[in-house]
Amino acid sequence: MPTFADRLAEAVRQKGPLCVGIDPRWESLPKAIRDPLRDELPEERAAIGYFEFGRKVLELVRPFSGVVKPQAAFFEQIGPNGMEMLQLLLREARLLGFVTVLDAKRGDIASTATAYADAAFAGCTVDGDSFPVWDADALTVNPYLGRDAVEPFLTAAKKADRGTFVLVRTSNPGAGLFQDLVCNGQPVYRHVAAEVANWNAPTRGACGLGDVGAVVGATHPKELAELRAAMPDVWLLVPGYGAQGGTAADVKVAYRPDGLGAIVNSSRGVTFPFHPDDPDWEAKIVAAAQKAAAELKP
Amino acid sequence: MPTFADRLAEAVRQKGPLCVGIDPRWESLPKAIRDPLRDELPEERAAIGYFEFGRKVLELVRPFSGVVKPQAAFFEQIGPNGMEMLQLLLREARLLGFVTVLDAKRGDIASTATAYADAAFAGCTVDGDSFPVWDADALTVNPYLGRDAVEPFLTAAKKADRGTFVLVRTSNPGAGLFQDLVCNGQPVYRHVAAEVANWNAPTRGACGLGDVGAVVGATHPKELAELRAAMPDVWLLVPGYGAQGGTAADVKVAYRPDGLGAIVNSSRGVTFPFHPDDPDWEAKIVAAAQKAAAELKP
Repeated sequence: MPTFADRLAEAVRQKGPLCVGIDPRWESLPKAIRDPLRDELPEERAAIGYFEFGRKVLELVRPFSGVVKPQAAFFEQIGPNGMEMLQLLLREARLLGFVTVLDAKRGDIASTATAYADAAFAGCTVDGDSFPVWDADALTVNPYLGRDAVEPFLTAAKKADRGTFVLVRTSNPGAGLFQDLVCNGQPVYRHVAAEVANWNAPTRGACGLGDVGAVVGATHPKELAELRAAMPDVWLLVPGYGAQGGTAADVKVAYRPDGLGAIVNSSRGVTFPFHPDDPDWEAKIVAAAQKAAAELKP
Repeated sequence: MPTFADRLAEAVRQKGPLCVGIDPRWESLPKAIRDPLRDELPEERAAIGYFEFGRKVLELVRPFSGVVKPQAAFFEQIGPNGMEMLQLLLREARLLGFVTVLDAKRGDIASTATAYADAAFAGCTVDGDSFPVWDADALTVNPYLGRDAVEPFLTAAKKADRGTFVLVRTSNPGAGLFQDLVCNGQPVYRHVAAEVANWNAPTRGACGLGDVGAVVGATHPKELAELRAAMPDVWLLVPGYGAQGGTAADVKVAYRPDGLGAIVNSSRGVTFPFHPDDPDWEAKIVAAAQKAAAELKP
């Protein structure tokens, strides 16, 4: 099996750097999906709606994107039924050939981190019987707890040929509160970036990039360019393009000269470019995905 | 309804500062629970085992502890069925009168953070119908993403009379990698502590403490004493006592003179003081909880 980095490189070579974020919200779903569910219990209505919508999005964006990123929070918001739909949707995405990034921003220490990592990658083993849980190609990870909290994710990813994306510089307006504190002449996020570059170095695949990626927001183009240079062999997952305000020009600084090196996420911009009443919602998703893919071409 | 801080104060006044962590692991469960499940599918075997064990732990530790902290990672590890058992166990704990802390270390930006916070506290609303998800009294939150990522948790907690515990200085050996970087003469964790103290100030209840707590490890007693002084009105959730190496003497620096101010977590030490074959596992849990409660008495 090729490394995670090489599978991601292949997806980007084939379809470009667009990563489609799947962030379902009940009130935003097309009426065409919500109305037939009106007699279901609310917990099931939401879960079925999220799956139906997510599956449709996968089909519609497939010509324009090789990577999808479901956001765990929105599935967790509707409870255990939602988590089941997250699992089904990740499987569906994999079967359709997508590289899947589970955006869960997990982080904990020692065997607790291993539990999250096993859920994400290898699955669970009970009395010698194994079953998959999320079975994602990559997981987003929060670094605040330090090296021994990140390492279980890296170890589990390595064993299962998967990847991680460590939060370095996030896309929100208040990201700098702790990330920009300057220590020994460098902001905290640069210290995190230096660790990521070290963790990544021994994992480089044929494409020249490794399996330990970094999350760097599109909303801070200066930091994005600086971090591209500081971590030349690290895959960047770039949120904040589109609805959050980052432009295609802003994010292109994240590409390496070979056109690889970054995947650029759009969630609302691609998946909710319609009003819930709109009968043309599918065509609008296709158009939004096509436009984003064209804009983002290296 | 009393504030979260006041409910926690009442629990600590009645039963002392011991918080029992529920971190189930299949291989550690008593054979008496595992064996009757041997014909179930592995996913269901683990889920039922975790619930049966967790429920038993709640009953057994109830005389010695008023606060329980299920660790989301171990339930996630066994998939959506596990998340359902986490939900049932949190409900069971609440019905038995425990204050519940969901240890999920969530963190994300804007409406994504709100989705996690709604799952934790208010529940989910679909077409005007609401249903609870985790319905926990408090949630652990990771601060790396900054103020606008923490605020949705604080807002949701305030609306529902719940609490948060923000990671400040964690108990793992490598916690210092980023948390101890020195910026403007203070380590990063002190910058986080200063923000927590500010967020907490307007939430103080009758007990004098507020609803925005801090996670500070018992394994670093010097930092624990320093942080107690730096955040005098902040509830501290102190992990690392027992199996991780922190002693009762180490953690007592976290108490205020009135005996309030800290809950001290023990997971393995209280819930797994037996070999899986041991027929006396229940008595051993009772003895371990009793010993921990006595040791930790302010």
